[in-house]
Amino acid sequence: MVADGPPAQLTRVAAEVDTRLRQLFDDELARWKELDPRLAEAIEELALVVNSGGKRLRAAFVYWAWRGRVDYPDGPHAEAADTLDTHRSHPHVVDVGAAFELLQAFALVHDDIMDDSATRRGRPTVHVAQAARLTAEGWKGEPRRFGEGVAILVGDLSHAYADSLMAEANPAARRIWDDLRIELSLGQYLDLRSAASGQMDWETARRVSTFKSALYTIVRPLQLGASLASPADPALLAALEAYGRPLGRAFQLKDDLLGVLGNESQVGKPVGDDLREGKPTELAAIAFERGRGDQQSILAGIGRRDLDASQVEAIVDVFRTTGAVDEIEARIGDLVIEAVAAIDPLPFCEQAKEALASLADYVAARNS
Amino acid sequence: MVADGPPAQLTRVAAEVDTRLRQLFDDELARWKELDPRLAEAIEELALVVNSGGKRLRAAFVYWAWRGRVDYPDGPHAEAADTLDTHRSHPHVVDVGAAFELLQAFALVHDDIMDDSATRRGRPTVHVAQAARLTAEGWKGEPRRFGEGVAILVGDLSHAYADSLMAEANPAARRIWDDLRIELSLGQYLDLRSAASGQMDWETARRVSTFKSALYTIVRPLQLGASLASPADPALLAALEAYGRPLGRAFQLKDDLLGVLGNESQVGKPVGDDLREGKPTELAAIAFERGRGDQQSILAGIGRRDLDASQVEAIVDVFRTTGAVDEIEARIGDLVIEAVAAIDPLPFCEQAKEALASLADYVAARNS
Repeated sequence: MVADGPPAQLTRVAAEVDTRLRQLFDDELARWKELDPRLAEAIEELALVVNSGGKRLRAAFVYWAWRGRVDYPDGPHAEAADTLDTHRSHPHVVDVGAAFELLQAFALVHDDIMDDSATRRGRPTVHVAQAARLTAEGWKGEPRRFGEGVAILVGDLSHAYADSLMAEANPAARRIWDDLRIELSLGQYLDLRSAASGQMDWETARRVSTFKSALYTIVRPLQLGASLASPADPALLAALEAYGRPLGRAFQLKDDLLGVLGNESQVGKPVGDDLREGKPTELAAIAFERGRGDQQSILAGIGRRDLDASQVEAIVDVFRTTGAVDEIEARIGDLVIEAVAAIDPLPFCEQAKEALASLADYVAARNS
Repeated sequence: MVADGPPAQLTRVAAEVDTRLRQLFDDELARWKELDPRLAEAIEELALVVNSGGKRLRAAFVYWAWRGRVDYPDGPHAEAADTLDTHRSHPHVVDVGAAFELLQAFALVHDDIMDDSATRRGRPTVHVAQAARLTAEGWKGEPRRFGEGVAILVGDLSHAYADSLMAEANPAARRIWDDLRIELSLGQYLDLRSAASGQMDWETARRVSTFKSALYTIVRPLQLGASLASPADPALLAALEAYGRPLGRAFQLKDDLLGVLGNESQVGKPVGDDLREGKPTELAAIAFERGRGDQQSILAGIGRRDLDASQVEAIVDVFRTTGAVDEIEARIGDLVIEAVAAIDPLPFCEQAKEALASLADYVAARNS
């Protein structure tokens, strides 16, 4: 489980998807600039978000599930084992990968408003940047209202563009696409509500994580990718879930660890924000279960927006001393083993199976 | 142009669409309640918005453009002149009408955050109601942040549901659907930006109105409806635009008048809010052009969020005394005449043509 950066099976897909996204933005900027340059500002802001990074993990799961099916058992493209050439005749799988990245940009921009996050991928978040713009321009109105309004629209625009890239997906793939968006919004609602109401129990944390990570990031992209090749039967959908569910949980657990232990410049958002938002995590749930009286009073600070660096550090210290950090790392290891064991029975070509194994290792070992 | 409430061609379509929406919400509430009743709260909040009224105008334009094509010149259903029976075998035209209503709910819920509107259709707006909920429940966090967060999600959910109802639309109809959502977001962005930067010039007001009313409310629903029957050729799309563009402008102008002169209980939102937001309208643009010095200083209050009732009244008085109100009413009349003149050349069945004429009159004469 040692990874030297993302595997080639991820970076090659990412490059294709990035090219498609650049093309979309170039086309759209040209189209709207001609009518009114002010309209293009909202698209430029979105392009900044989309081009500022992101692992393109969802696009990779879409691609490899599609590829796994079209080359199985030794399909027409089995020769092209270590190239991505096979999909050049199927641009729509790249379109769908790009759609996931735009959907992710939509979710991030809207989540950042809800969490009032100041930075994302090392840049100011859209609502923060646009609030500052109102002030800098000397325009009328409340900076916060304007910043959040523009960010809502930039997210909505990304949602619409994402959907436009799904134009050629078959009905089976579309149904998965429809469902995952509903799961995404409902999962985020449960997250918000649980943080506000202080119901940070195990079961809730798991449910949020299932919607926002396991399903949205891994299971649904895989199922959708496989369905693009040909409508997937229930047995295949379940087999993909057997890989995607544990890996999705591992992904979320790693995310939670990076959120409190990570290197801010790599993670791209301030360490401690998850604690200030009172984000329900398994990490916090274990600490709450195990903490003694004095540790409980430190943990009670979770969800306070004014936590300073030393208070964040004290909470992280409780996470370590209660063994919550070790416990989460052990769980991540077990979950990756469980996911990898589910690869072999898949009716996928060998290259795709290798790719899924590499992606599983990467998800657990990444540092951003 | 005297209308005793909405015409039957509107109310019958509305009834079908409402039935479809109720069915969607019943299904979705049952599905998610079973998993976790908290998830259903977000859907219930959306259902309240969707069921709280709305004219279902977009659904009617979709329906009649579709019907106009399938019954032309005397199609298989020409007998059923005064019933809607013909579409019972085509539930997807009702789905698409319902999709437009969900898209409208999405746009309203998000716009209400951007404008910080307190009420909509006589009820508290989602962000206001949810902020109050946090306080009432004694939950943690900032009420405004929570209320706006939930409202963003309720809107996003509506956007996803809208799209799911487009599942059976053909590629030509989908392209129109994709474009109209981009136009909607960009139009709202230009609106927000112009209000903030104080660029309330004629051309900008017209452009915003074109996106948000002419295209989104009338032209695109008509073009999409016609495309559902069979992919529409450029000549038909242009012919529909010849009806929809002027009518869309009339719709916006009427909206602007109702926003300052309307009866609050009928319009469903506080009179004067448009002025407090500094919404760029042709009405205001005319007043700015014609106003004398002392009138200009009254108009300078437009865009101030703290305008009280007497200041709103003074601005409305300037709208009247400069002749801006009369000018807008005259323009509405001319635009409806222009729209109605564009109906006759349409390759539509007679009932559809009659419906489009009734809808044009209604748009201009409505009081809510």
